[in-house]
Amino acid sequence: MIHADRILMGPGPCNPYPEVIEAFTRPILGHLDPDFIQLLDELNDRLRKVWRTNNQLTFPISATGSAGMEASFVNFVNPGDTVVIGVNGVFGGRMCDVAARAGASVVVVEEAWGKAIDPQRLLDAHPNPKIIAVVHAETSTGVRNDIELLGKNKGESLLLVDCVTSLGGIPMLLDEWNVDIAYSGTQKCLGVPPGLSPISVSDRALEFLVAKPQSWYLDLNMIRNYVTGDGARAYHHTAPISMLYGLHAGLGVVLEEGLENAWARHQACGDELHKRLPELGFDLWAQPGHRLPDLTTVTLPEGLDDAKARATLLNEYGIEVGGGLGPVAGKVWRIGCMGHTARMRNVRMLLGALGEIVS
Amino acid sequence: MIHADRILMGPGPCNPYPEVIEAFTRPILGHLDPDFIQLLDELNDRLRKVWRTNNQLTFPISATGSAGMEASFVNFVNPGDTVVIGVNGVFGGRMCDVAARAGASVVVVEEAWGKAIDPQRLLDAHPNPKIIAVVHAETSTGVRNDIELLGKNKGESLLLVDCVTSLGGIPMLLDEWNVDIAYSGTQKCLGVPPGLSPISVSDRALEFLVAKPQSWYLDLNMIRNYVTGDGARAYHHTAPISMLYGLHAGLGVVLEEGLENAWARHQACGDELHKRLPELGFDLWAQPGHRLPDLTTVTLPEGLDDAKARATLLNEYGIEVGGGLGPVAGKVWRIGCMGHTARMRNVRMLLGALGEIVS
Repeated sequence: MIHADRILMGPGPCNPYPEVIEAFTRPILGHLDPDFIQLLDELNDRLRKVWRTNNQLTFPISATGSAGMEASFVNFVNPGDTVVIGVNGVFGGRMCDVAARAGASVVVVEEAWGKAIDPQRLLDAHPNPKIIAVVHAETSTGVRNDIELLGKNKGESLLLVDCVTSLGGIPMLLDEWNVDIAYSGTQKCLGVPPGLSPISVSDRALEFLVAKPQSWYLDLNMIRNYVTGDGARAYHHTAPISMLYGLHAGLGVVLEEGLENAWARHQACGDELHKRLPELGFDLWAQPGHRLPDLTTVTLPEGLDDAKARATLLNEYGIEVGGGLGPVAGKVWRIGCMGHTARMRNVRMLLGALGEIVS
Repeated sequence: MIHADRILMGPGPCNPYPEVIEAFTRPILGHLDPDFIQLLDELNDRLRKVWRTNNQLTFPISATGSAGMEASFVNFVNPGDTVVIGVNGVFGGRMCDVAARAGASVVVVEEAWGKAIDPQRLLDAHPNPKIIAVVHAETSTGVRNDIELLGKNKGESLLLVDCVTSLGGIPMLLDEWNVDIAYSGTQKCLGVPPGLSPISVSDRALEFLVAKPQSWYLDLNMIRNYVTGDGARAYHHTAPISMLYGLHAGLGVVLEEGLENAWARHQACGDELHKRLPELGFDLWAQPGHRLPDLTTVTLPEGLDDAKARATLLNEYGIEVGGGLGPVAGKVWRIGCMGHTARMRNVRMLLGALGEIVS
């Protein structure tokens, strides 16, 4: 079977950094091997730097981003707890589903797809919720929701933030913004294939850990005995060694470039796309002032067939872009420029291809 | 950071097949790319062959083996359902924990560590349990539990089997043995690094799927819309592309060798270890007639220090073997010979090293 070689400009996965793929080829170590534990500790230190946090419990969950979401709820929600959730896209909606399965009493704060959620509405939705949860960068709409004001005014509530499409791509300052629980994915702005979900938990949030969450696999009480601590590491489940090599390497690339430089690179690609796409007849869809640089959403020029145009991009140019989800399926494109893909050369290539397709 | 190069003869991970590592280097595709869907379909076909099943719902869960265990319970257990579980080691015990968190009323059938569970005891434990669950190959003890009689006499109950350390290493005939729900891992006899958990569900068991299981990430109702079906694949979570490339390649290696040949290779390595280790003063621990060829358990020669001897093996010979868990920590070794590690040359190397250490 011959694999095609794509430029991945959808909503994720992105093209991985070459150093990540190189790391996949390293000899496998056992999950209790002292050399492996050292690598895992270094990986978690790198993760803290990229998230701008000192949270001790910061590590990658052994599954993809949605498992990080599930871990973030099942470890902190007791049946009947009130959870306020902002919903302006698929992933806020998914949070409601996950929280409800954990027994939460969910208070939904809805906003139109394509618009950002006013943080004050989240703060006013309930007098004393256990958790206020919001998606930082909505992968379904390309919208950035504001976090800072929530951290400032959350009171006793825990602030839970989905950083899947923000971590490494746009400023996300976990400690400065007073976030308690955060999770992300590897396949977006960290430039690593999908497979892990980094998570970070503040010391304050640790006091609220559910003693025996409904999920054994995601039980942070048990997992923290393996990923933290100075002494012997207690086996919980077998760690996904190769993927951890890859994430370790990807974080190394980001930090070697410098986190601010990585943010600037994502921003520059986004700025160029936001400037040039309207010249080709694609209208920017997300609310001005809240547009993600790493994930640009556009409505299509009149007469352009969604499925046909994306198939042409994929088959004739080797470029993948994402279609719309739910209510905007067929009407909106999601153009990612994340991780190793976030290079001006790829922006040029896409704009060139689109220029040919719409002409 | 320089990675050590180990011969992995613990209870898993094993050394991966070179073809698997090669597959990790292939260009990343999107999880909805037609080329990727084709690879996933082929992977699942290969999985059916290795499991000797025609079950349509056969695919890898996007997380390590214990997540497969959790998926197997949360998708079939409604609160209050009776589940009979055989416990003669760590993984049977883990099943009880996982099932209880899903609300099961658990009936435990205990047997001493190192001994096999009499299937008749499992059948007699309750008149009409929803599920009878047992571990085929106990990774903590090196014992093989009998499955066949359970499948023959289970009546209306669903038979749930942990195949983590059996799939690809010893005969495991899912359809012939009438197993309803099975899960495995990649890092044992399939010769792939850890990261995925293959699962297979019989058509009969599908009728008992819980409509809305407590886990969103492991919800088989939702995932099956992505992994099966002829039409469009509905996005559930982002698939771990690289790991799936690896498993696809590993299964290809097993099938090219021939499944019976792979079983025979694991058996030959186990036979040699079972014959030679006692000559060096290591006594075979698992019950005769139920000893796994791919995971040999031994008690240590008088006077041999567990931690010191394993450190010598690791640091001076580059060989990892596993220590005992729970009640036999410090007293028992677990010597794996799985996947690409299951070569007579590795058996010779280990025996040579041990000969030097005990002399």
